[in-house]
Amino acid sequence: MIHLTAAERLINYLHAGPKTAVAVHDPSNMFYLTEGYTGEGLVYISEASRVIITDFRYTEQAERQAPGFRVEMTETGRNHNRVLSELVKAEEITELRVETNWLSVDAFEDLRAAVGEEISFVPLKGAPQKLREIKTPAEIVAIRKACDITSEAFNAILPKIRPGMTEKELQIELDFTMLRLGADEFAFDTIIASGENGSLCHAIPGSRTLKNGDMITMDFGAKVGGYCSDMTRTVALGKPSDEMRTVYETVLRAQSMCEDALMAGKTGEELDKLARDYIDARGYAGRFGHGLGHSVGIDIHEEPRLSQRCKDVLQAGVVITVEPGIYLPGVGGVRIENTCLVKENGCVPLTTADKQLIIL
Amino acid sequence: MIHLTAAERLINYLHAGPKTAVAVHDPSNMFYLTEGYTGEGLVYISEASRVIITDFRYTEQAERQAPGFRVEMTETGRNHNRVLSELVKAEEITELRVETNWLSVDAFEDLRAAVGEEISFVPLKGAPQKLREIKTPAEIVAIRKACDITSEAFNAILPKIRPGMTEKELQIELDFTMLRLGADEFAFDTIIASGENGSLCHAIPGSRTLKNGDMITMDFGAKVGGYCSDMTRTVALGKPSDEMRTVYETVLRAQSMCEDALMAGKTGEELDKLARDYIDARGYAGRFGHGLGHSVGIDIHEEPRLSQRCKDVLQAGVVITVEPGIYLPGVGGVRIENTCLVKENGCVPLTTADKQLIIL
Ligand SMILES: [Mn+2]
Ligand SMILES: [Mn+2]
Repeated sequence: MIHLTAAERLINYLHAGPKTAVAVHDPSNMFYLTEGYTGEGLVYISEASRVIITDFRYTEQAERQAPGFRVEMTETGRNHNRVLSELVKAEEITELRVETNWLSVDAFEDLRAAVGEEISFVPLKGAPQKLREIKTPAEIVAIRKACDITSEAFNAILPKIRPGMTEKELQIELDFTMLRLGADEFAFDTIIASGENGSLCHAIPGSRTLKNGDMITMDFGAKVGGYCSDMTRTVALGKPSDEMRTVYETVLRAQSMCEDALMAGKTGEELDKLARDYIDARGYAGRFGHGLGHSVGIDIHEEPRLSQRCKDVLQAGVVITVEPGIYLPGVGGVRIENTCLVKENGCVPLTTADKQLIIL
Repeated sequence: MIHLTAAERLINYLHAGPKTAVAVHDPSNMFYLTEGYTGEGLVYISEASRVIITDFRYTEQAERQAPGFRVEMTETGRNHNRVLSELVKAEEITELRVETNWLSVDAFEDLRAAVGEEISFVPLKGAPQKLREIKTPAEIVAIRKACDITSEAFNAILPKIRPGMTEKELQIELDFTMLRLGADEFAFDTIIASGENGSLCHAIPGSRTLKNGDMITMDFGAKVGGYCSDMTRTVALGKPSDEMRTVYETVLRAQSMCEDALMAGKTGEELDKLARDYIDARGYAGRFGHGLGHSVGIDIHEEPRLSQRCKDVLQAGVVITVEPGIYLPGVGGVRIENTCLVKENGCVPLTTADKQLIIL
C-alpha cells in the first residue's frame, strides 16, 4: 500500500490539476496538511509545491515541524499575500482554492487584491475537514493517548474531591493531573459544574463550594501530539437525592444504548433520536438541550456530528463523542460522555473511566 | 461624571442614530460590549436595544453575566440570523454594522441572505477595538491583578528551576503556580525556551532538558476577570557565556531605555526605532526580528503596537508591552518584557519582577 501524505490526499480529493493551487489559513487544517506545523502564516499546496509562508518568528519551527514543506519567509515589503501571489504567478495557477468559511471578508479582499482578479477564486468548501473525518492509524494512536490520560486523570482525581473545595480548585487539580500524566495541553477549558450549576451545560468553574449531596459534572479532555480527547463524568458527593439518582440512571441508559448502537452505516440523526426519544419518554422532554455528540480530532468539535441535523452515514474511522445529558434549571444536571472510535460492526470507547454512579 | 456602558460608548463613537444597529460576533468584542458575557452567539446593539442572541446552552449564563442585556434564545427553525433579522425588522433598521474583519466570507453571506439585501451592511471597521485601546479604571484593576500574579509566579518558580528538568516540566510548574495564585486561565500558551531553543521566539516547551550554562526564556501571562498580562524574563542556569551575558545586557538596556521613553504623545514607531537602533548599533542588526510591543487587554495582542508600522500617537490609558529581544540561531536568545500602563508623563510597569540578570 502506498502511503499518501495529507497534502497528496487533498490534491486527489480535489482532482486538482497543475493549474490549481490551494491556500490554507485555518490553523487546524494547516497542521493536518503539513502533518505537524503549529505556527502562524498560511500553507500553499499545488501539484508542484508544498510551501509554508510565514514570518521570521516561525521559520525555524516550520522547517523542523514540516520537513516535507519549503518555507518562504515574509520580509518588509513582501508580506504573506505577496509571497502567495509570486507562487501563483510562477506556477501559472489559474484557480486558487481558498477557505471562504475561515477567511474574513476583509482578509479575502486583501488576498484577492494581492493575487489579482484575473485568476478564479473557488471556495475550498471544507475539503480538508472532510479528509479529517476519517482518522488515520497515526491519528488514532494520538487520540487514544489523549483519551488514556483523560481516563487516568479522572481516576486520580476522585480521592481528592471533598466538601469545602471550590469548583475552581477541583478544576486546577484535574488540569494539573492531566499535564502530569503527559498532556501537552487541554483540549478545551475544563468544565466543573456542581449542584445547581450542573444545569449550565457549559459552566465555567467558579467559587461555588462543593457540598454533601451535590452531583458534580466534570467535562474535560487532553491534547496530545495535536489531537484531542473529550470525556464527561458526573459523580455524587455523598448520597444524591432520589430525583438526581433517577436522572443519572436515565442518562446512563441513554448513553449506553447509543454506544451499543454506534457503528458504520448509521446516521448521526438516528443515534441522536435514539437518545432523545428515550429521555423524552422518561419525562425529561426538552431537558436534553444539545446534540448527542461531535467528532473529535485536531479540533475538539469536528464533523460529522450525532445530531438531529446530521444525515451523513457514519464511516469506520470516525472518532466521535456520545454525550447525552439532562439539565434541570435550579436543581442540577447529569452528563455522561465517551469519545468512541467507530468500527464496521460497532464502536470502541476510547475513554474508559467507570460509568456507573460513583458516590464519594 | 456620567458613567456610560461600553454599549453606549460604542453608539456614541459611531454616531449611530435610531436606524443603525450593530451585530458583533468577535467573542472579545462581545465580552467588552456586554461587560461580561463569555458564551457563544452574537450581540445586537441599537439605540433602543441591547440583545445577546444565543442558544439553549448559554441563555442562563448570559442572563447572569450581562444583566444589562436581553437574551434571545435560538430554537429549531429560528437560528441566530433569523433572530437578528426579526430584530432588524422590528426596529426598522436601515443600516447594519458588521465585523467584516471577523466574519468569514461564508458567514457574512448567510447573514446577509437572512437579514435581507434591502438594508445596507457597513463594516464596523474595528470600532470596538478602537474603544478597547484606552482602558477604563475597572479594566486596569483586572490587568494589574493579572500582572501581579505573573510577577509573583516568576518569583515563586525560581527556586524550583534545576538542571535535569525539562522545559515542559518547568512550564507545567509555572502554569500551575499562576492558577494557584488566582489566575482564571492563561493569557496565552506559556513559552519556555532554553539554551539554543532560545533563538525561537515562539518556542513550544518541549522535552529539552535544562543544563548548566543555559539561558532560559520564560514568556507567560495570566488572565483574570477576562483580562491578560504578559511578561518575559530570561534567567541563567549557572554561569552564562560571555557572549550571552553581552546579549543580556544589550536587551536589558534597550528595554529600560524604551520604558523610560514610553509616555502619551509618543508613537509606536519612534519607540520601536529607539530599541532597534540601539540593538543594531551593538552589532546585532537583524537579530531582533519582531516588533517592540503590543497592547494587552481582553486579547493578548491588541492595538496600538510599538512597531515600525505604527504611527498612531499613544494616549494615556493604553496598556502595552515593551519586549525587545536578540535571537542567535543555534546559540540562544534573550527577551525581556514588561506590561506597562501609559500615563501622560511616563509609564508604570505593571509586571514588576526583577530585570537584572538572575544566575540560578
Ligand atoms: Mn464533548
Ligand atoms: Mn508579549
